[in-house]
Amino acid sequence: MTGRTGRRPGGGSSRAAILNAARARFAAEGYDAVSVRAVARDAGVDPALVHRFFGGKTELFAAAMQVPPEAWHGWAGVLDDGVDHAGERLARLVEREWADPAVRSPLVGLLRGAVTNPDAAAMVREFVGGELLGPVARALGTPDAGLRTALAGSQLIGAALARHVLHLEPLASADQETVVTLVGAAVQRMLTGDLQRSGEPLGAPRP
Amino acid sequence: MTGRTGRRPGGGSSRAAILNAARARFAAEGYDAVSVRAVARDAGVDPALVHRFFGGKTELFAAAMQVPPEAWHGWAGVLDDGVDHAGERLARLVEREWADPAVRSPLVGLLRGAVTNPDAAAMVREFVGGELLGPVARALGTPDAGLRTALAGSQLIGAALARHVLHLEPLASADQETVVTLVGAAVQRMLTGDLQRSGEPLGAPRP
Repeated sequence: MTGRTGRRPGGGSSRAAILNAARARFAAEGYDAVSVRAVARDAGVDPALVHRFFGGKTELFAAAMQVPPEAWHGWAGVLDDGVDHAGERLARLVEREWADPAVRSPLVGLLRGAVTNPDAAAMVREFVGGELLGPVARALGTPDAGLRTALAGSQLIGAALARHVLHLEPLASADQETVVTLVGAAVQRMLTGDLQRSGEPLGAPRP
Repeated sequence: MTGRTGRRPGGGSSRAAILNAARARFAAEGYDAVSVRAVARDAGVDPALVHRFFGGKTELFAAAMQVPPEAWHGWAGVLDDGVDHAGERLARLVEREWADPAVRSPLVGLLRGAVTNPDAAAMVREFVGGELLGPVARALGTPDAGLRTALAGSQLIGAALARHVLHLEPLASADQETVVTLVGAAVQRMLTGDLQRSGEPLGAPRP
């Protein structure tokens, strides 16, 4: 016993302690209920150190889930051209994340957790619903914005799953631009299109 | 030792032996490569007995995966009103399957397997692509029918996952008819709509 406080000295061990504490908190409480302050307390460090190492709670979550920080950077720009162009940006972002094995592997891990136990599902739901889809819903601002963005999110995750996990053909081997265009258009229809409008009959004239 | 052949006498043990053999074969070889004959041989029974107990290979697969047989019956009627109405029928079928805990549980098990190991993913892919989406693609008959049905399939599985596994709100608590209508329209657009057409800008007049 050195008689000092429980605060850990070296940067390396503090970082590891923070990530372990974050993983335990997120797994037990989901995403919403966890605060950076609580994680810092569990790790025996000052909250300022968590912010200095990782940034905010979103980045801490990503780091705890071993998702490379670059993977999240694109999300900040999803609404740069407004909601009328968010569909393709979202499709491109999700496609790039899932096409990169270093990002796909932890994302598949998150998905596996979500399909395996309700606590992990809650954690993924709160992160996806709040941090990723929330800003899009607020930018939409319509009464049905929540439903629209949830449907858009379901299309994005379904396409990633079918293409990069199930390898469902011909989606799996379609080139990236084709996938981004088609999924992007579908997501855009979810966000700002007429939701009730189904496809034209096959024989109908196309514009 | 009774000196008799390896064929099993009682219906109960034969049925269990067939299901065990089917599970082992499907897990090892995927869906496409497995024949009823091979499963019968592994189980030490006549192929006719497999057909008598289960029907065809689709039903054998469902039984081996512990999916109640009723769950698959609806798939036969998906094209009854033609591809121009398949979207809503597909959405209704998938929604009903995933809303029923007795069906959802084995489906989640299949999904968990697919997210966990490539052999299980191959099995699910071959079953979904061949048995469920294949007939829709053939009914469409267009050069892009495979891509359209794969995208439609990705929307169906994404919606089921978001609603019934992740419980993403407000999709999770939306009433069933709303979900069937909206997902059905999205699937129909995938099947017969203009795939490149994205949503109207928010300010544009709606019909």
